[in-house]
Amino acid sequence: MDEHQRFMLAALREAEKAAAEGEVPIGCVIVKDGRIISRGRNARERKRNALLHAETVAIDKACRKLGGWRLWQCDLYVTLEPCPMCTGAIINARIPRVFIGAHDPKAGAMGSVVALQDLPFNHKPEVTFGIMEEESSEMLKGFFRTLRAKK
Amino acid sequence: MDEHQRFMLAALREAEKAAAEGEVPIGCVIVKDGRIISRGRNARERKRNALLHAETVAIDKACRKLGGWRLWQCDLYVTLEPCPMCTGAIINARIPRVFIGAHDPKAGAMGSVVALQDLPFNHKPEVTFGIMEEESSEMLKGFFRTLRAKK
Repeated sequence: MDEHQRFMLAALREAEKAAAEGEVPIGCVIVKDGRIISRGRNARERKRNALLHAETVAIDKACRKLGGWRLWQCDLYVTLEPCPMCTGAIINARIPRVFIGAHDPKAGAMGSVVALQDLPFNHKPEVTFGIMEEESSEMLKGFFRTLRAKK
Repeated sequence: MDEHQRFMLAALREAEKAAAEGEVPIGCVIVKDGRIISRGRNARERKRNALLHAETVAIDKACRKLGGWRLWQCDLYVTLEPCPMCTGAIINARIPRVFIGAHDPKAGAMGSVVALQDLPFNHKPEVTFGIMEEESSEMLKGFFRTLRAKK
């Protein structure tokens, strides 16, 4: 297992916690100098707040921890392709590198519905897809299977 | 002064407060049943956090106040065209109507750089530009004039 897979595995653990809390299982970690400095998981239902996606939760913590809004020395790992809000948050925080597990054909804003990083905004993160894609995708599929079975 | 101008004036007052705090002057209010239920102003520098734009601050407060993440009965008024993060937050919160003061040619995601509301996401807010556009634009210009004069 390489470094990228190791960090994505940590993001997947966050996604697992979200699933256990009844949330769509998406997890995120932010890494600086080879160390995880913040973790986030989807908390929209539990905290009843539209802003609390895995990425925004992790970016919020990282800004607090580093004491600044520019996360330009940080890598972000997330199990599912970010939505427009989270892609915008990544751009606003000047995060240079983003590693993604699975594509999100319905709401992805880093390539699926739109690729915001290719538009002329003032920061263009470098995006790598497919880190532990199968595990990320399988976790989401499993969650929705269970949800349907319960109905 | 019509109702839309009255709400935009309240957003402009938030922008003024932001300017007094050394922030780029952008303000926002969220309205439900003809009443302002939350206010937000840009706090990125002061709170050193990439997520704290006028719109996200107001959406966060509105979700807490209403106890849910769906703000589908709310109108949002903002002095400057939302960036991708804030447009995404508006989509995620299912806000149906957005009223905007001035265009943002550099970072606007509701028509200027991109129009996210026209892409196939699962919610499409209705967008109206030009509510007190001159006042919104002038406040920003004045702020940057003062900033340049100080340098």
